[in-house]
Amino acid sequence: MNKILDKVDSPKQLKQLSLIQLNKLAGEIRELIIRTIAENGGHLAPSLGVVELTLALHTVFDCPEDKFIWDVGHQSYVHKILTGRRDAFSTIRTQGGLSGFPKRSESPYDSFGTGHSSTSISAALGMAIARDLSKKNNYVVAVIGDGSMTGGQAFEALNHAGDLGKHLIVILNDNEMSIDKNVGALSEYLSTMRTAPTYNKVKHDLEFLLKKIPTIGESVAKVVERLKDSLRFLLVPGELFEELGFKYVGPIDGHNIELMREVLEKAKTMQGPILIHTLTRKGKGYLPAECESDKFHGVGPFCIETGEIIKKTTNKPTYTSVFSKVLIELAKENKNIVAITAAMPEGTGLKKFGEIYPDRFLDVGIAEQHAVTVAAGLACEGKQPIIALYSTFAQRAYDQILHDVCLQKLPVVFALDRAGIVGEDGPTHHGVFDYSYLRHIPNLTIMAPKDENELKDMLATAFSLRTPVVIRYPRGNGLGVEVKTEYQHIPVGMSEEISIGSDVMFLAVGAMVDSCVEAVNLLKEKNVSAGVINARFIKPLDERMIEVLAKTVKYIVTIEDNMLAGGFGSAVLEALNEREFCDTKVLRLGYPDKFIEQGKRENLLELYKLTPAHIAARTYAFIRNIEVR
Amino acid sequence: MNKILDKVDSPKQLKQLSLIQLNKLAGEIRELIIRTIAENGGHLAPSLGVVELTLALHTVFDCPEDKFIWDVGHQSYVHKILTGRRDAFSTIRTQGGLSGFPKRSESPYDSFGTGHSSTSISAALGMAIARDLSKKNNYVVAVIGDGSMTGGQAFEALNHAGDLGKHLIVILNDNEMSIDKNVGALSEYLSTMRTAPTYNKVKHDLEFLLKKIPTIGESVAKVVERLKDSLRFLLVPGELFEELGFKYVGPIDGHNIELMREVLEKAKTMQGPILIHTLTRKGKGYLPAECESDKFHGVGPFCIETGEIIKKTTNKPTYTSVFSKVLIELAKENKNIVAITAAMPEGTGLKKFGEIYPDRFLDVGIAEQHAVTVAAGLACEGKQPIIALYSTFAQRAYDQILHDVCLQKLPVVFALDRAGIVGEDGPTHHGVFDYSYLRHIPNLTIMAPKDENELKDMLATAFSLRTPVVIRYPRGNGLGVEVKTEYQHIPVGMSEEISIGSDVMFLAVGAMVDSCVEAVNLLKEKNVSAGVINARFIKPLDERMIEVLAKTVKYIVTIEDNMLAGGFGSAVLEALNEREFCDTKVLRLGYPDKFIEQGKRENLLELYKLTPAHIAARTYAFIRNIEVR
Repeated sequence: MNKILDKVDSPKQLKQLSLIQLNKLAGEIRELIIRTIAENGGHLAPSLGVVELTLALHTVFDCPEDKFIWDVGHQSYVHKILTGRRDAFSTIRTQGGLSGFPKRSESPYDSFGTGHSSTSISAALGMAIARDLSKKNNYVVAVIGDGSMTGGQAFEALNHAGDLGKHLIVILNDNEMSIDKNVGALSEYLSTMRTAPTYNKVKHDLEFLLKKIPTIGESVAKVVERLKDSLRFLLVPGELFEELGFKYVGPIDGHNIELMREVLEKAKTMQGPILIHTLTRKGKGYLPAECESDKFHGVGPFCIETGEIIKKTTNKPTYTSVFSKVLIELAKENKNIVAITAAMPEGTGLKKFGEIYPDRFLDVGIAEQHAVTVAAGLACEGKQPIIALYSTFAQRAYDQILHDVCLQKLPVVFALDRAGIVGEDGPTHHGVFDYSYLRHIPNLTIMAPKDENELKDMLATAFSLRTPVVIRYPRGNGLGVEVKTEYQHIPVGMSEEISIGSDVMFLAVGAMVDSCVEAVNLLKEKNVSAGVINARFIKPLDERMIEVLAKTVKYIVTIEDNMLAGGFGSAVLEALNEREFCDTKVLRLGYPDKFIEQGKRENLLELYKLTPAHIAARTYAFIRNIEVR
Repeated sequence: MNKILDKVDSPKQLKQLSLIQLNKLAGEIRELIIRTIAENGGHLAPSLGVVELTLALHTVFDCPEDKFIWDVGHQSYVHKILTGRRDAFSTIRTQGGLSGFPKRSESPYDSFGTGHSSTSISAALGMAIARDLSKKNNYVVAVIGDGSMTGGQAFEALNHAGDLGKHLIVILNDNEMSIDKNVGALSEYLSTMRTAPTYNKVKHDLEFLLKKIPTIGESVAKVVERLKDSLRFLLVPGELFEELGFKYVGPIDGHNIELMREVLEKAKTMQGPILIHTLTRKGKGYLPAECESDKFHGVGPFCIETGEIIKKTTNKPTYTSVFSKVLIELAKENKNIVAITAAMPEGTGLKKFGEIYPDRFLDVGIAEQHAVTVAAGLACEGKQPIIALYSTFAQRAYDQILHDVCLQKLPVVFALDRAGIVGEDGPTHHGVFDYSYLRHIPNLTIMAPKDENELKDMLATAFSLRTPVVIRYPRGNGLGVEVKTEYQHIPVGMSEEISIGSDVMFLAVGAMVDSCVEAVNLLKEKNVSAGVINARFIKPLDERMIEVLAKTVKYIVTIEDNMLAGGFGSAVLEALNEREFCDTKVLRLGYPDKFIEQGKRENLLELYKLTPAHIAARTYAFIRNIEVR
């Protein structure tokens, strides 16, 4: 059977298709996406929800002259398939393949790279301003989900765009869902709008009534006049956006291509900023994803027939699941613990906590800044808040961590999940900056566990400190070590000596400790005596241990899954420098000064020479003074 | 004449005062504030605007059991005076004296420390949640200006608070002004509200009319029914807030103590989150400040009679003014330059640029995140945006700098003003973190000029690079050097050799270069031969120069007005380490791992031993291996 999709090499060809053909094409695109993501894993449900919307966009506008900005970008698969990347789509999210997010360097059709939430309206506005300055006449369209709309930056952009009055189309893709169930007053508001009488209807009714009123007496006439003036104050669905200076259109069925095209054509001819409110269904067209859209938001390989996730055969628990379990345990004893997530109860492992302790669980929406300051407020009043965020998203709250929590030395615990390499989501999502953007903040303690059991101990320790604490741990499985029932508090700044070597000592942290243990064995085969210190604390560093090392070992190798610049090894250099230990030679292993591409964790560790074998080889070369490639 | 204020040692005593006495007290407070700030400098206009509001708050609520959170906090002088700090008020903003912002460690009445904008509702919500969890019944009140309301975090907090429904009072202190003239659609919206018919009036009118309608015919009756249902959709002033789940009250004259107290008493009895919209006048009661509230927002010492600022006698221009002039010059030739400020055209020196090039000037409101991403959008479309921010406020946009600008390697220039010690504004405002939070970001070039002339060259260089660039420079006056008419482009990463020393070399950056030149002379008196390298680039470092130094000099002293952790000196250690130059001894001078207190710049430099004399003494001790206290 000849497919329509086979002939679509660029969006221009879409314009020749009939409505029937477009609807058929929608089915073909869904099939390709489901088939590919079942294999590669990826953001399935978001992209399935915008198939018709994307087709409508590409038939009405002329991309890449017209600019589309996809907020977060996980819904851009359809766009990628339609813009010359159909055949490459099988490589999505693999090393060297297509990115799972829009990427400017990948295609001229990707007008703006996204990955983090709530940036699209800002970027679109910038492009609209540039267009007007250059006296061009292209269109700019931002597509943003209702979840992303809860991020404060989206509001900042609406506020500015509404004021400037540039022509700009914002499509609010309302699927009542961000990654998990959406939260916040805005979400409530949108659901009211879905059922509210439309503006025109109310207006019509009122005008009808006003006509019926007998115009006896001046008082009544005056009131009628006044009311007419007030008509403009009638709340229409979308008034919130209208008040911010946007023209609101909607809500519209985002799966109706014909209707969407009509509305988009209309929007072209309107003036100023326009918000089109579309209703779509996440996971549309694939029943398992429609039913469980949070599970299929971002998903690993799965079985198409059953919708079952293909589990990797491992008995090792994930760090996330250990975190989840331990926190529930701790919260049983410690009633002051309050857990906070920014729209990711599932991903951060807080979902179950929320079920068991609903009063002590807060989902603030995609609002990391607010999450941190609300925790600061809780801490001021004797609570012990813990915020679970992905390392990369915590970047959003750098200022609040510094200014609201650490400056006031408030007891807030930050559980930074997905630290280090996250894999297929690539450069927008790797958590490789946190040591560098956190360790210069005064009053902050930063820990990283070497295994699941240590994560448990560190969590208990963090709550006992009553000061700001960060614990960061990687994505995926732990080592499979036994998690003890009792807790062991770790003295602040105390490292752990795992083994002693007379030639070289590894000073490792977090997930890299275990790799060093392996490297020690490999070095033994080469007659090198190496040992491992588990630093545990990035801040404060174990000064005593560093002093002992400096006095007893000639070579130190620091290892971290973070940027080298300003990271853990950098902290070790500073500590040695402060004590004027200049004779110790230090090799720092970690990530170089570039953004790390997408790929499987093991492959990227290979690429950046951070596997046990590479660590051993680089260490050997270092102490033997050999050049290694 | 006995003053009422003399007897007010705590807010409890206010409750005994009559309305007449309170109004008299308002005058006395204004007099004290004007007198003190004329001497010390400070945020005059914001505090003068909230005298009555603060009196009303303290007579209705029981602080500190009830919590007041002052957004930004520059309006908290009245609160400080009324809460046991009247006599200490003369020390405000001086070293060891009262902070110019609320500070938890200063007083139990300061429930939450502020300084950066738009955090108050988040913190207040945290306190309200904690209160309910602890089954307490205190009140929580956030006071936030209309300017701060444009910050995205305020929206995140409204969205969350509206959803949770906790009792919480937000006072929107609407003075039509943030630091400069307010911008954005929200500002437009608020001004509509100021003149809009009130909800009750419209509702009353409509009900009156509905009663008058003859109920003939079923069709009309149905319409009436339907309209009654729609009544709740009538737009009232404050609908934007109501849609977010807040009860809106206002607008109310914030200078009417009686009315404010009435409304606050009412708010105590209401359920859920409440927003009280008050109208106040910035600078109220001091004519020069009322007329020029931007000038008197934050002001240096001034003459009370004339309102004239007491200028320090110097002919040296400020870095800000040089930046302003040079940018206007560059923009004349380069039509692609677009300048962006986040509500600070005056402070950042962009005001004049906006007057000359209104089309190429954007004031986005207090919205640093949006500012950066809107610049990214402009850059995608061939423009060359420059964002002028205070270093401390750029912290808000760390993620956007990394994720939206640097990851995409877009040509955005960041002019970070007020870097290093800012002085009297203290720990919330010092720009001492920027090297540390920026230098690990790939693709970013970071420069700091040694003087005004170099700032000029660096600006021209920045626009020529077409990649992300940060230029950071300090508050206050430059060195008074001649600013040449022509531009000199600086090769990326190239340092400048100022002088050569055989014993020790200073590796200095930015404002510290000149101090080192002085230190060299002091060392000469002690027969030490020292030289100075002006690094110019923090990133990329001048690798060649570092190699030469390492090979030729035994001692290097790095100097920066930034935290030592992860800063410039740390980068030098990394560079030496990478090249395995272990024999060079390095002393790093900068700020230690603590938040820096308030105080005059020169005093703080003295305290942290960064004056030329201290630099010389510490260097001498370092190379002679003597302990210096």
